[in-house]
Parts: sequence; C-alpha cells; structure tokens
Amino acid sequence: MVLAPSVYRVDCPSRPIFEHVTSRWGVLALVALLDRSYRFSELRRHIGGVSEKMLAQTLQALERDGLVHREAQPVIPPRVDYSLTPLGREAATHVRALTRWVESKVPDVLTARTEYDANRA
Amino acid sequence: MVLAPSVYRVDCPSRPIFEHVTSRWGVLALVALLDRSYRFSELRRHIGGVSEKMLAQTLQALERDGLVHREAQPVIPPRVDYSLTPLGREAATHVRALTRWVESKVPDVLTARTEYDANRA
Repeated sequence: MVLAPSVYRVDCPSRPIFEHVTSRWGVLALVALLDRSYRFSELRRHIGGVSEKMLAQTLQALERDGLVHREAQPVIPPRVDYSLTPLGREAATHVRALTRWVESKVPDVLTARTEYDANRA
Repeated sequence: MVLAPSVYRVDCPSRPIFEHVTSRWGVLALVALLDRSYRFSELRRHIGGVSEKMLAQTLQALERDGLVHREAQPVIPPRVDYSLTPLGREAATHVRALTRWVESKVPDVLTARTEYDANRA
C-alpha cells in the first residue's frame, strides 16, 4: 500500500521538505530570492539576524531540495550567486503570500495580545 | 517616520508573529485546525513527533496572537478544545496551500536530491 504524502507523518518524505521550506531562515531566504538573485553576503545583510553558518546551512538544504540554484562565478575575488529554481519560485510564492498576510495583520495580532495579557494580569 | 512592517527586520513586530505562524509545530497545528476543532490530546496524536510541552507552548503562542481559540469545557474529566479564530483561518489557509504544494512535489525534490548527491559523490 502506498500512502499519500502527509506532512503530519514523521516518516513521510514530505516532512523534512516542509521543514526546510518553513525553517526560520528558509522562509526569509525564499521570499528574498523571489525578487532577485543575491550574493551570499548581500543576502545575509538583507535577512536581519541570521548568522553566516545558519544561512549557509539553510541555503545548502534548499539547494539540495532543488529549490535554490547556487552559481559560483569565475571571478576574482570569488563570488557566489544564489537564485530560485522554477520549483523554488513556486514554493516562495506560497511563502510570500504568508509573509504579506502577516505584515498586513500586525495591528490585529497586537490587539489580540493586549487582550490576552489583560485577561491574565 | 513609520516604517512599513517587514519580516526581514529583527525589530519589526511582524517578525515574531511570522515565526509563530511558521514554527515547526505551529504550521502543522494551524493546518490541522482548519479541518475541525481538536482536543489537546487528539491534536498531539495527529501531529506526528510533537511533545506535550512543545505543543502546549505552540498553542499558547498562537492563542496569544489571536489565531487560536482555547475553550476549557466545564465537564468531568476536564476537556480543552482548540479551534481557529477567523484571523487564524486566514493564516492557516496560506499555510495549507504550502503544505499541499510540498506534498505534491515530493518526487521532484527527491530527484533533485539524488542529482545533488551524485554531483558530490
């Protein structure tokens, strides 16, 4: 019997893919790359708070999953450009819809938090 | 000057909201609750691999953000039901689009990984 993929099963191959796509830095890298390609150092500056190590790990996981394309430019000093693959663009488009929704709902969430905290004060 | 919300800034209030919505267990809880309300223990069984502590923390953050509604039922033994608020339904709908996309693209990602690993063998 072949089960349909489900992110709810720990043993489903979709689960680690979903975890890469929704990882703390993965979501931000995907959406940033939807606008344009970035060099590693540029992308790191663009994503507030990410360390070099975490961004490198994040990009490597996304590259291995076929979502990000890494291109080492044959220039001096060495330069590496990151961009989205067609598959990565699809993922990033979904993630961007979520980032835009969150950015548009900040006042609603802050109101909810104030009420929550007041009920527990 | 008031900056528009941006999940890319560490000091933007949208950033922690986005991190709750895209947290490892937050994503799975939101999508599960899109189908129906769950008792805590049911939801824990539904989400493979989550611990009691992590699920409780996840649900509390989502409740405080106004995305999840927690209802303690006045019955014996005590029972707590979790459901989505209208705001939570909006967030969960975006997240579900992403889970469905990931579940549909498993073969593409596995092919990409095989190629990636072969190029580095």
